[in-house]
Amino acid sequence: MTANAQESFAAWCIRQQGRLEVALTDAIPVSGPTRLGEAMRHATLGGGKRLRALLALAAAEAVAGGADGLQTAEAAAALRAACALELIHAYSLVHDDMPCMDNDVLRRGKPTVHVAYGEAMALLAGDALQTLAFETLTPPDGSVNPCVQAALCGLLARASGHQGMAGGQALDLASVGVRLDEKQLRLMHRLKTGALLAASVTMGAACVPDRPASARDALARFGEAVGLAFQVVDDILDVTADTATLGKTVGKDAADDKPTYVSVLGLQRSRAYAHTLHQQALDALDASGLSFTTRLRDLTALVVQREK
Amino acid sequence: MTANAQESFAAWCIRQQGRLEVALTDAIPVSGPTRLGEAMRHATLGGGKRLRALLALAAAEAVAGGADGLQTAEAAAALRAACALELIHAYSLVHDDMPCMDNDVLRRGKPTVHVAYGEAMALLAGDALQTLAFETLTPPDGSVNPCVQAALCGLLARASGHQGMAGGQALDLASVGVRLDEKQLRLMHRLKTGALLAASVTMGAACVPDRPASARDALARFGEAVGLAFQVVDDILDVTADTATLGKTVGKDAADDKPTYVSVLGLQRSRAYAHTLHQQALDALDASGLSFTTRLRDLTALVVQREK
Repeated sequence: MTANAQESFAAWCIRQQGRLEVALTDAIPVSGPTRLGEAMRHATLGGGKRLRALLALAAAEAVAGGADGLQTAEAAAALRAACALELIHAYSLVHDDMPCMDNDVLRRGKPTVHVAYGEAMALLAGDALQTLAFETLTPPDGSVNPCVQAALCGLLARASGHQGMAGGQALDLASVGVRLDEKQLRLMHRLKTGALLAASVTMGAACVPDRPASARDALARFGEAVGLAFQVVDDILDVTADTATLGKTVGKDAADDKPTYVSVLGLQRSRAYAHTLHQQALDALDASGLSFTTRLRDLTALVVQREK
Repeated sequence: MTANAQESFAAWCIRQQGRLEVALTDAIPVSGPTRLGEAMRHATLGGGKRLRALLALAAAEAVAGGADGLQTAEAAAALRAACALELIHAYSLVHDDMPCMDNDVLRRGKPTVHVAYGEAMALLAGDALQTLAFETLTPPDGSVNPCVQAALCGLLARASGHQGMAGGQALDLASVGVRLDEKQLRLMHRLKTGALLAASVTMGAACVPDRPASARDALARFGEAVGLAFQVVDDILDVTADTATLGKTVGKDAADDKPTYVSVLGLQRSRAYAHTLHQQALDALDASGLSFTTRLRDLTALVVQREK
């Protein structure tokens, strides 16, 4: 089955989510004498919107002028980038849910990894999921251009480490019970959630090398706006959704005395801010000079209008 | 100061350890509003033999026919590979020491990271150290050949993930109170400790591309023997050294009811096995066809004859 511009957004999402599930299942073996692989699969498979992966795939298509414009090695790189992003996201959730962090017991409607497999295995599974992301980006079979491999590893590492996601989590940790202003809150979220979402877009674009820097820069701005919008909407949903819809415990941030956009800006201004970020993202796409941005536009709408 | 074949092994080690300390200090920034960088430095700087790093640097020199044979980009790659290995090693120790794993309070004569900074920060610091290893391997400044970057990321990821170090730690976890035979014990250690030590050698060699595969294969066999020898000696020291010399709690494995070479083979046969592995390592170097292997020979002796 091939992709084309006429395929509906919903059909595209379902098709890509299916490809991702297969690729992630293949990437995580469950053989061997321990339950490590099983715990890694528990954390990764069978759920999630795969937003980061979809952004990467859509960005690669946008830069290539549509799915048909992707060469075989570029399409292979994009699928690997998409999987690596989901593996990093899964690892961060496993560790974030642990008792010494958020101590959450429910994730995507399932028991969290430490509840199902114990704390030590959750620690190891998270560690091994992070490593697997970089393994996924560096296939030794020559299917992905080594320059693209190196670029993807660099982008992913810089987005998820001490200057990105992990740095944001450290800020989050330090902010419990502390009154942050909007600027500090934005820094925390730009690192904690935004960096990886923005990297999803830049990594997707990096799979198709030798394209104009202007398009790349515009996509980077798009990714930043979407990343921030995601967190604002997350904070809104934490107070407006119910646990059954959300698939995780609601009101958790407020109960943990963590600063959120809603606690800093109030609900109404948070909604207005999400709307502004949505517009900024669309403006960046307009400025990119790329013709095939429909998937990225649809994904932005999904981020802002989602109910879980 | 330049390296040369006349420089004594001790002087070479001290010079390289100095370079590594500077490079690792530069790699881990301590600015920012949290103590994350500080915790990462606590875990990484000011101690350790830097065995993995020294193996990588010595392997690069061996393949290049001596330090003077290394081109600028190759020397830069080797230093980055060496740092990345130490960062992965440091992350594994931070997580391994945590209460849900070995619950150790002393490491290299200092309080472990979770004792000094709390469990949540130890979790994040370990996570961020792993990421930093891949960041270190992928400098965006063009100082390292992208093909070498990709190869190093792949080798490091495969050695430290579910099929390497993390897989070995899962086996270790599953083996508490279980009677392993020698074959199972060897598998556990080949993954848990051996994979990263062996990768130290292959990563060092990968920094100098386009050399004969026969030399590369012989170095890989050398790395495997050294990796296994390291663990056998570690198990011997756990029962023969004292805590002050070792800088960590001795008798810990026996107290935790973990299988070790000493518990499976006895002390005398463990010593004989270490001797055999030492010889296998030297035989592999003889078979490599490389002329400048003196550093690797000296490092092997250091591994087998060390007292801590």
